[in-house]
Amino acid sequence: MTPKTDHFFRQRRPETPVLVVDLDIVADSYRTLRRVLPQIEVFYAVKANPAPAILRVLADLGSSFDAASVGEIDACLTAGAGPERISYGICSKKQRDIAYAYGKGVRLFAFDSEAELDKLAEAAPGANVYCRILTPNGGADWPLSRKFGCELDMAADLMIRARELGLVPYGISFHVGSQQTRATQWAVAIDRVGEVFVRLAKAGITPQMVNIGGGFPITYREPVPGIEVFAEQIEGAVARNFGRKRPRMLMEPGRYMVGAAGTLYSEVVLVSRKSYAEELRWVYLDIGKFGGLAETMDECIKYAIRTPHDGGETGPVTIAGPTCDGADILYEKCAYQLPKGLRSGDIVMLDATGAYTTTYSAVNFNGFLPLRDVYI
Amino acid sequence: MTPKTDHFFRQRRPETPVLVVDLDIVADSYRTLRRVLPQIEVFYAVKANPAPAILRVLADLGSSFDAASVGEIDACLTAGAGPERISYGICSKKQRDIAYAYGKGVRLFAFDSEAELDKLAEAAPGANVYCRILTPNGGADWPLSRKFGCELDMAADLMIRARELGLVPYGISFHVGSQQTRATQWAVAIDRVGEVFVRLAKAGITPQMVNIGGGFPITYREPVPGIEVFAEQIEGAVARNFGRKRPRMLMEPGRYMVGAAGTLYSEVVLVSRKSYAEELRWVYLDIGKFGGLAETMDECIKYAIRTPHDGGETGPVTIAGPTCDGADILYEKCAYQLPKGLRSGDIVMLDATGAYTTTYSAVNFNGFLPLRDVYI
Repeated sequence: MTPKTDHFFRQRRPETPVLVVDLDIVADSYRTLRRVLPQIEVFYAVKANPAPAILRVLADLGSSFDAASVGEIDACLTAGAGPERISYGICSKKQRDIAYAYGKGVRLFAFDSEAELDKLAEAAPGANVYCRILTPNGGADWPLSRKFGCELDMAADLMIRARELGLVPYGISFHVGSQQTRATQWAVAIDRVGEVFVRLAKAGITPQMVNIGGGFPITYREPVPGIEVFAEQIEGAVARNFGRKRPRMLMEPGRYMVGAAGTLYSEVVLVSRKSYAEELRWVYLDIGKFGGLAETMDECIKYAIRTPHDGGETGPVTIAGPTCDGADILYEKCAYQLPKGLRSGDIVMLDATGAYTTTYSAVNFNGFLPLRDVYI
Repeated sequence: MTPKTDHFFRQRRPETPVLVVDLDIVADSYRTLRRVLPQIEVFYAVKANPAPAILRVLADLGSSFDAASVGEIDACLTAGAGPERISYGICSKKQRDIAYAYGKGVRLFAFDSEAELDKLAEAAPGANVYCRILTPNGGADWPLSRKFGCELDMAADLMIRARELGLVPYGISFHVGSQQTRATQWAVAIDRVGEVFVRLAKAGITPQMVNIGGGFPITYREPVPGIEVFAEQIEGAVARNFGRKRPRMLMEPGRYMVGAAGTLYSEVVLVSRKSYAEELRWVYLDIGKFGGLAETMDECIKYAIRTPHDGGETGPVTIAGPTCDGADILYEKCAYQLPKGLRSGDIVMLDATGAYTTTYSAVNFNGFLPLRDVYI
């Protein structure tokens, strides 16, 4: 919720569903991170919201970028970031995509397996490569599972192998999971990085960089600890593990940079009941799981919802999207209440929807257009 | 898997991921349904795959269409189906969308609530409306939950209300859930429709139509009963409930019409292991949950996968999509095995992917393009 987005919506009344993003909030988030964690470079996780307007604001402020595909690399270059400010941060890449990025001047690449190192050696000779390690994700509302990263002994072996292949064994990375509210998980992870550094020292390798990933939480329905709490854990662990030999440090915030900047305006399509026996109402919105709110999967992310009837009497609701699909239900287990006055045609506002919404939107499911987005 | 799609892929080598759909199989599926259930009209569920080529084939064969949005209605009209062959089959519609459909000549609308009836009375005066009832979904791999439909007593009241509002209380519908393998669920549902008919007779209303929805299963990894098994249950229940007063009957097949016609060709991006202790390999494909395989959510739909190494020794795998997202894992719990010879760059084929794939594809998540599709 920002006064700017609400003013815009009231004045323009764009067709719903529409995401309105306040670029001032994006800039504020960047400045906050720079102030609280001045020794850690920001590589914005483009996947959170790759809108050109956002990339331009961040490029102008001096941010670097974490890209997951050649499409995202091109978007960063177009926004004015040089290739030296881009990390190709996904551990599974097609060899021809590595070659494409290398051809554009990108020299920083993630990996977590020997097969990926072979591709990098072939398509990005001499590049800086960093190995992602597994670390606990408990406490994250959107855990990243074990999809990327390897165990510590394997990570050390792979860094040695990278050197053998003519690559620069440049750093170690991790990710504690997205919307991670447990600040100590960064300390746990940095301790694990420290272990890998110790193993590598025995092989004569001193990595130059640590990438602490993203995951900083933002406020949805529930308050979360402030960024200072996370900074304290991170800096404490860095001091403990590296002392005066502090490596170059990067972070990859995505949600933290753009989430709060976005407000999603949606029309109520229908409010109904299924039976006379139940008080429960079903509220159908014109935005759903396949229109951009994919992070409601398993009700992981719980968006705050405002309505024109706030303050009036409320009752329990199940909230669903506009499609025929039975899986297109946003919330039925986590006790949402909405005003009893809510009706078809009302406009509701979903706050903090700037991250992981527009690009998750399905191209045409049930014949509905993808989520519109506006940057102001 | 069809010889035509495989021949096309081998000859043309289109960039992956790509869905290739054999239109002959679509036509065959339509003819099979007409042969086995000759007394039930086919309203193709456009949401399963709204490609113009598919709509044209079916329109030419004489199919009618179940549309979930004005976008789908326009697509059907463009394909040559007149408005009398279109059902606006979703129970939650914006009033202006109802008015749009009515303006195009559509006269058949679904509902399951009083609020929706009010909109229909306003925007589609005199139209034929049918009420969706709740029915058990057990046995469906992709259950539709309680998202649409109401209890039987409410359905009867709403049909009476429809008449009061000047609408035609035309019929009753249900949906047993998608990829429903338990044929008896149709009989259970038709018995429930019969109950509503009995209630309505007391109010002097005899609905003219029963819409038995979709849900007929197709073969993925496991064999399913043939369509004849379902036909027997359906016709038995119709005879039991309606005898010689058989109402007009409709069905809304989606998956059954187009699923088997599609083959998805995908490149292996990486095969890796996470630790020395585990035999498990991770296989990353260039198609994933956000690129079109949304029905792998909770591992509901289990696609059969072919590889160039079939016949060789296999081992356990977790299969993941190409994005950074930890939720973008297709299968990790349901014991997939793939050949040990599988490597980055290999092409794998996912069979029976013609339904609920292209339109579920995200617009640009992680900078990846939506799923390409070709109709031959």
